Amino acid sequence: MHIAQGVSFPSPSRRGFLQLIAHPFERRLTCGWAIGTRRHASSPSSPSRVIFSGIQPTGIPHLGNYVGALQQWVKIQDGATSATDLLFSIVDLHAMTLPYDQARLRLQKRQTLAALLAVGLDPQRSTIFFQSAVPAHTELMWILSCTASVGYLSRMTQWKSKLAMSDNVALSDPDTKAKLKLGLFSYPVLQSADILLYRATHVPVGHDQVQHLEFARENAKNFNTAHGHFFPEPQTVMSPVKRIMSLKDPRVKMSKSHEDMKSRILLNDTPDSIRVKVKAALTDSIDGLSYDPIGRPGVSNLLALMSYLDTSHRSVVQITAECQGLSMRAFKDEVAKTLIKGLTDLRERYDYFMSAAQSQYLQEVVTAGNEKAASKADETMMLVRRMIGVD
Amino acid sequence: MHIAQGVSFPSPSRRGFLQLIAHPFERRLTCGWAIGTRRHASSPSSPSRVIFSGIQPTGIPHLGNYVGALQQWVKIQDGATSATDLLFSIVDLHAMTLPYDQARLRLQKRQTLAALLAVGLDPQRSTIFFQSAVPAHTELMWILSCTASVGYLSRMTQWKSKLAMSDNVALSDPDTKAKLKLGLFSYPVLQSADILLYRATHVPVGHDQVQHLEFARENAKNFNTAHGHFFPEPQTVMSPVKRIMSLKDPRVKMSKSHEDMKSRILLNDTPDSIRVKVKAALTDSIDGLSYDPIGRPGVSNLLALMSYLDTSHRSVVQITAECQGLSMRAFKDEVAKTLIKGLTDLRERYDYFMSAAQSQYLQEVVTAGNEKAASKADETMMLVRRMIGVD
Repeated sequence: MHIAQGVSFPSPSRRGFLQLIAHPFERRLTCGWAIGTRRHASSPSSPSRVIFSGIQPTGIPHLGNYVGALQQWVKIQDGATSATDLLFSIVDLHAMTLPYDQARLRLQKRQTLAALLAVGLDPQRSTIFFQSAVPAHTELMWILSCTASVGYLSRMTQWKSKLAMSDNVALSDPDTKAKLKLGLFSYPVLQSADILLYRATHVPVGHDQVQHLEFARENAKNFNTAHGHFFPEPQTVMSPVKRIMSLKDPRVKMSKSHEDMKSRILLNDTPDSIRVKVKAALTDSIDGLSYDPIGRPGVSNLLALMSYLDTSHRSVVQITAECQGLSMRAFKDEVAKTLIKGLTDLRERYDYFMSAAQSQYLQEVVTAGNEKAASKADETMMLVRRMIGVD
Repeated sequence: MHIAQGVSFPSPSRRGFLQLIAHPFERRLTCGWAIGTRRHASSPSSPSRVIFSGIQPTGIPHLGNYVGALQQWVKIQDGATSATDLLFSIVDLHAMTLPYDQARLRLQKRQTLAALLAVGLDPQRSTIFFQSAVPAHTELMWILSCTASVGYLSRMTQWKSKLAMSDNVALSDPDTKAKLKLGLFSYPVLQSADILLYRATHVPVGHDQVQHLEFARENAKNFNTAHGHFFPEPQTVMSPVKRIMSLKDPRVKMSKSHEDMKSRILLNDTPDSIRVKVKAALTDSIDGLSYDPIGRPGVSNLLALMSYLDTSHRSVVQITAECQGLSMRAFKDEVAKTLIKGLTDLRERYDYFMSAAQSQYLQEVVTAGNEKAASKADETMMLVRRMIGVD
């Protein structure tokens, strides 16, 4: 991507921009990024490393999405050698597993795409595409379905949490039968297909997706057993633990699904909006500052947020020390100031990509990504079809 | 298809051939074929009648398949006006829901295709295609999955019978969890997609598929409710009741899955083979002949078979009267003679289409069919994608 050249974006170059938002926590935490170099016999021409990850088009990402996933994707992209294939998909088919509004989905896909470009994904380097533009995802899903265990799926927790049901609920419970749709139940198989379609070797995910990655390996094994060795078993690449909590209830993760808009800060929030949200953040009345996520979740969340977004790369310890004498109100002013500074570039870039003038550029980016992904997918499916006997 | 002209097939013209194998039962039984003329607002250019049906590529059809389905398809084709779209799919994706051999599937697909041509389906009139060649089947399946109830699917009987489980078995039973794969469980949704993808208005099926057609209507309704009216609710077209029973156990249907090859007669069985199988058919030691499917299932099955395949169109009543004085052995000779005569053309046509010389013709037929089906499917999916917000 040539933001600085081609589209005359006013902010610093991408690399400069990324340095700007880097911070010490990133360097201190274990990334878990351990890449093997095993090649797969069945596809001698494929690169030795294929990174795939997906994001649901939930619209403008909040800081939890950014710090927990997107920032990591950009790090991976910028650290990857040219032998590494990078694919990042906006998984719109997954967005249909619960009732949704069609027009809003269309908007949210565009917002998510703009956000991926804003955070620094480079379409020249990474294949950015819409899942629904590559029908092979569902084709491979069906094939994997034929060896995927219903029992295994029934133990998955995500469909239960999405339906606000307990982890112990059974498939045959009347409440499950009344509410559960096949799409929501079977979506981990689609997710496996998303990954295996590109013969991904490494998948960066958050902690809530570890179970699904385990299942993707299971699906790869099942296919390999039934049809011959073909799919690599994708390795989980854990993002550094950077949990951003809700500003209104710091015991739960910051989330798009909370009703109160003040519970989260979005990538494109204005300085005023950030100030209002931070001011309204739930803290405590204990004197002084301390980082104690269990005992003082609200204050600790603000300290972590500051550290993650701080352009001077201060650690939580440094910030705690520097802000120690401040009243809660004054501390919140500091938090807001740091977040505003840390997000200015992101907001400007996001707004830029969402502007009407850039609409065609976004379309071009995703069209090219769709084509690139479809061509890789076709390569896989040609081999898969031969193996399963339907070529 | 111009068998009599283009490929110099030695037997009578297709029409003559079909008259040859017609018989009075067909005229006497209610066909159930009641075609509406409702057009659907969302697709003004589509024909008013779209007939779709599918056959699993289980290889060379036996008489049960022929009399129960294929013969009916040909009748429908030959009786259809030019405003009717006819699609017959070899549903190879459905063949993967239980463990299978890849090379055998490849062969069985070719055999099924040859059989469809042998019985008289005309590729100029009917679109004959492989399901796996049109990825939109699984794409639409996913979309329908998102509004398809797991509870409804759990009540379906076919996955239970395919796993040799009782109809009362629950999804959460340990045995189910151990054995059931998602493909087998969810395949009625793929079947719904097969039908709805072509916006079929009428689907000729056997009695065992009535439940699945009901489910297809449910899926159409669910989509229409979530995204706006689009899919017609396909009507079930019941085949005339022509149940052909196993020769070795006439209380159960003739089936590919029975171990004893003598339990079924295949479309291409030689005269010798037919004689051997009929001779070994289970009957009874009651004197004389009578048509009594409950009390004398073996004899009644042979009488029905004779009548269905009789080139002189005799009814069961006529045959029973004419063969009344014969010993069981002599009666079986008569049965064999009638079946041999009734199947000669079919066998010759089948062998012809399976010959090496016709291999390329078969390939051309199905390639053209695949393209035609894919183009119709694309038309539907373009509209569907717009409706669901992923265009």
